[in-house]
Amino acid sequence: MEILHIDSSPLTANSSSRRLSRALVDEICQSFPEAKVTYRDLGITPPAHLSEKTFLALINGNPIDAEAEQEVAAIHHSIDELRRCDVLVIGAPMFNHSVTSQLKAWIDQVCQARLTFKLTSAGAIGLLTDKPAFIVSTRGGIYADAAHKVLDHQEPYLESTLRLMGINNIHILRAEGVDKTNPGRQCSEQQSLASLPALLNKVLR
Amino acid sequence: MEILHIDSSPLTANSSSRRLSRALVDEICQSFPEAKVTYRDLGITPPAHLSEKTFLALINGNPIDAEAEQEVAAIHHSIDELRRCDVLVIGAPMFNHSVTSQLKAWIDQVCQARLTFKLTSAGAIGLLTDKPAFIVSTRGGIYADAAHKVLDHQEPYLESTLRLMGINNIHILRAEGVDKTNPGRQCSEQQSLASLPALLNKVLR
Repeated sequence: MEILHIDSSPLTANSSSRRLSRALVDEICQSFPEAKVTYRDLGITPPAHLSEKTFLALINGNPIDAEAEQEVAAIHHSIDELRRCDVLVIGAPMFNHSVTSQLKAWIDQVCQARLTFKLTSAGAIGLLTDKPAFIVSTRGGIYADAAHKVLDHQEPYLESTLRLMGINNIHILRAEGVDKTNPGRQCSEQQSLASLPALLNKVLR
Repeated sequence: MEILHIDSSPLTANSSSRRLSRALVDEICQSFPEAKVTYRDLGITPPAHLSEKTFLALINGNPIDAEAEQEVAAIHHSIDELRRCDVLVIGAPMFNHSVTSQLKAWIDQVCQARLTFKLTSAGAIGLLTDKPAFIVSTRGGIYADAAHKVLDHQEPYLESTLRLMGINNIHILRAEGVDKTNPGRQCSEQQSLASLPALLNKVLR
């Protein structure tokens, strides 16, 4: 079993998404001791933004310079990691109602027409093999209730990009109210941790 | 009148969002010849991703090194541009169901608790003065119909971040089907151009 473990928070010292994604991967590894983990820390080492010359090099197969060549190689590397893994774990904190810009840069790397999905007159068709994907979703505030759901462009957004590429077996581990500096919030990180064994039991066993 | 004109497509040669945002700004300048335009090309020169040391420097007012000091200054500069302008124009192409990572990096610069919004027990309150904001929205495919609206994390997302900061006077200039390499799509860029005078007449006169 190969696990691709991604973190995307730029914060390290007190990051709920990092704690929870680590706990989830550790829990999988306890059940599957032979599991091999590939770790990508997008929060600390984000991919480059997709540039015009990289975009054209991907289409033409003809990089204009060494930088574009390197970027195309980085994109193929990220796609290979995603294609190869059996289980995907993405730590995805909400920043301003969506994923972090670091994670969006990765999405713009891997969501590539012709490589991970294809466009047809009937719509987009994903080209990756389906696999279990865990979105570790953390939010400073509370967004799961009906009144705030409309502002949530993090979970449904990330789901839509995974589905675009053919990954539909998606499960969410969510902790809300994790910003303890703000008033009137109940942090649900401990409940999320407690729910881990049952979640993995449902998905992986 | 001060106009802040932002482009966020990494593509230049054949970019619908660049053509339309330019046409919109030109049309405003024809009606208001004294208008002063500040132009930010995020597609070519994206802001840095928000890093932990910059985030902490913003909170503590105490940058740990020269890089963090420079980033904090860049954030204040971007916020000042947004605060100062009378009219905001954002060229925002859809990339993988949302805004580009370049535009998301700008959003994570300017959407800052305490600076452009504040959190209260009753929810977030925007701290910017309201002003007309034009979102120039372009999409390769067709997303305005009911079946695809659920995949749109570009227009409603960008609107939600502007509203978060107190900008509610939002207008959308949209062109769909702009990716001509794909089958079964009707490009609406010409209709969008034709709708410009009426849109500006409604909003600015």
